[in-house]
Amino acid sequence: MGEHFDDLEVREPAERERALFEALPRQLANARSNAPGFARTLTDVEPDSITDRTGLARLPLVRKSDLVTLQARQPPFGGLTATPLGELARVFASPGPIFEPEARRSDYWRMARALHAAGLRRGQLVHNSFSYHLTPAGAMLESGAQAIGCAVFPAGVGQTEAQLQAMVTLRPHAYVGTPSFLRILLDKAVETGADVSSVTRALVSGEALPETLRDAFTDRGVRTLQCYATADLGLIAYESEARQGMIVDEGIILEIVRPGTGEPVPPGDVGEVVVTTLNPDYPLIRFATGDLSAVLSGESPCGRTNMRIKGWLGRADQTAKVRGMFVHPSQVASVVRRHSEIKRARLVIDRRDGADTMTLHCELDEPAGEGLRAAIVASIREICGLRGEVELVVPGTLPNDGKVIEDLRDLR
Amino acid sequence: MGEHFDDLEVREPAERERALFEALPRQLANARSNAPGFARTLTDVEPDSITDRTGLARLPLVRKSDLVTLQARQPPFGGLTATPLGELARVFASPGPIFEPEARRSDYWRMARALHAAGLRRGQLVHNSFSYHLTPAGAMLESGAQAIGCAVFPAGVGQTEAQLQAMVTLRPHAYVGTPSFLRILLDKAVETGADVSSVTRALVSGEALPETLRDAFTDRGVRTLQCYATADLGLIAYESEARQGMIVDEGIILEIVRPGTGEPVPPGDVGEVVVTTLNPDYPLIRFATGDLSAVLSGESPCGRTNMRIKGWLGRADQTAKVRGMFVHPSQVASVVRRHSEIKRARLVIDRRDGADTMTLHCELDEPAGEGLRAAIVASIREICGLRGEVELVVPGTLPNDGKVIEDLRDLR
Repeated sequence: MGEHFDDLEVREPAERERALFEALPRQLANARSNAPGFARTLTDVEPDSITDRTGLARLPLVRKSDLVTLQARQPPFGGLTATPLGELARVFASPGPIFEPEARRSDYWRMARALHAAGLRRGQLVHNSFSYHLTPAGAMLESGAQAIGCAVFPAGVGQTEAQLQAMVTLRPHAYVGTPSFLRILLDKAVETGADVSSVTRALVSGEALPETLRDAFTDRGVRTLQCYATADLGLIAYESEARQGMIVDEGIILEIVRPGTGEPVPPGDVGEVVVTTLNPDYPLIRFATGDLSAVLSGESPCGRTNMRIKGWLGRADQTAKVRGMFVHPSQVASVVRRHSEIKRARLVIDRRDGADTMTLHCELDEPAGEGLRAAIVASIREICGLRGEVELVVPGTLPNDGKVIEDLRDLR
Repeated sequence: MGEHFDDLEVREPAERERALFEALPRQLANARSNAPGFARTLTDVEPDSITDRTGLARLPLVRKSDLVTLQARQPPFGGLTATPLGELARVFASPGPIFEPEARRSDYWRMARALHAAGLRRGQLVHNSFSYHLTPAGAMLESGAQAIGCAVFPAGVGQTEAQLQAMVTLRPHAYVGTPSFLRILLDKAVETGADVSSVTRALVSGEALPETLRDAFTDRGVRTLQCYATADLGLIAYESEARQGMIVDEGIILEIVRPGTGEPVPPGDVGEVVVTTLNPDYPLIRFATGDLSAVLSGESPCGRTNMRIKGWLGRADQTAKVRGMFVHPSQVASVVRRHSEIKRARLVIDRRDGADTMTLHCELDEPAGEGLRAAIVASIREICGLRGEVELVVPGTLPNDGKVIEDLRDLR
């Protein structure tokens, strides 16, 4: 079980970085030439000039939260795909609606790597409890399993009894699906005496996997690993047997940025996951997922050398409504940019005597006086259109949780 | 739209027959060598000796209704498949349960031919409202559409609103699914003013399509054709624009037999559809579908030269329970076989004064007397273990509806 899916996983990190940034200019050129949406946003970008992370960080973001609007304006894919609809294998509609393409390529979503890391091998049978309808989760895992050479039982969601009966007869090696449905199946098996001992591996996604639940699966003989993937991007990161964070997929460039901005955070800081994919059919450049995570330093003991992240740490979209006005993380970032003295900031929203309050906590390297405070107050009023207070604090005061706006109001 | 899917469809009938019966001995050898279930039942058969329909008709049937038992005895496929489970693409579980394999081949179920006949062409988008979960209907139509070069929207069953919204945005060319769900979608579109005018073609299956409903689809701009397929066999027959019966698929040999027997009926008589497939992975030899149909004489005006059938005319399984005892069509056949004077027979079950009655109506070429009647009564008692009456009638009296047992009791 120690072997790797391919040699890419065990490259020297510098070699990987070189390969990714050699591929990036080609991908930028592809996006500009074949995807009208990117032709617009990347019009002033010279693809060959983007050769490192600093260059990449200057490119505009595409926010997941903007996809509904972009796609409604230019159906169905917002002009962000490079392959005509009729040449695709499948088209999906996730809630939103957000439409996602699947091109005619083996393992389009690159899930095979995560399945391999979870122990799946050629000739095994996989019980797939993700939905195949409307959304791509079922197809994502199935195409990955088939690329490895596994047979797939497309169980889908629900119909627990029928799924359990099939599991008893077909004796699959592995389960893929949500952790909560695996729990339902295993509990039902205990209750009914169904023999599901063939299932010794699981790859779960789509929900948090508490360690207590993972331990419960292990106790029942199911070694369970997680992966992090989205319908737009495919695989982003995956666990290995080492179970130390999630290892970034080889087909993407991952950044962690300050929520509301496109600025990379210092290594280890919590921020929004931004992914640039090398997928030629859907060349998402700096796609802001709306998910929070952080880079985990060091290398995995399993031998895979790619960057690791801590997994899902929450949602990055912290837009709040204060006295009837929306306040966005990007506005907080604008305030911070105006005052170079501010190293990090966090806008805390609360309620006092029936009225919303807003206080910007600013970490400063050097003590500062009333002049700076008054200037920041003025910036807040100008940028947010709202009155806010300012509190100046020393570095290390604000928690490392990716929160740019913290809403303490009881909104129930 | 007049062109055909391939040259096979327009072969001289004699050429097709020669090709099918050249392929059959290879398929019999494959079944005997690689599928243990057929190794048992075909042990005395010399594959090379089966070179025509008369030879084929001597081989034993595999009844759809026996699959549950066969598979339970030898999971998961009853020893009837020739490809190991781990080398399959997918495995399905239909109600029963009956398990079905899908091998790693393009268009495994040969549905592309039916989709082409229904007007589907490369580069179009297909809205697929068959289920992808547990059962293979969704995968059957999808793999066929992809073989043609269509993109597929895997809508699945239910979630009418989301399906309709996707249809409005994605503007598919065609719908595949049940006719009743197409009606639901089109009614909902009228009700909500949704523009689904992109959908101009439909291939429906899984239910009857009344001509009034087909006309209603046509009135809304959707030209709708049907196909007849099963999860075990794939495509059996399909409609063309000619809409004169259903044209048999090129990858199978189709027979119509007297229900309860393996004996072919005279051309035009209603009987059970028995299919021998050339699928190397699941070499079903004389698979009795349990469906009734009849051969339609002549050739289709669309230019396709294969045998045509009348479509689905009911279920062949006419097993009835009389005074607590099961009576099977095969028992009726046994009675008929004992008395060469009987040309056709039909067992009519009714209820009189609170008791079940059973009358065997026998068509005779020549008038016969009480001796024959008494002999038949004795045969019924011996073979069925039940007392039955006998009525002797002239040829042409019994309706041509494939019914060997007719149950007139009101069993509500």
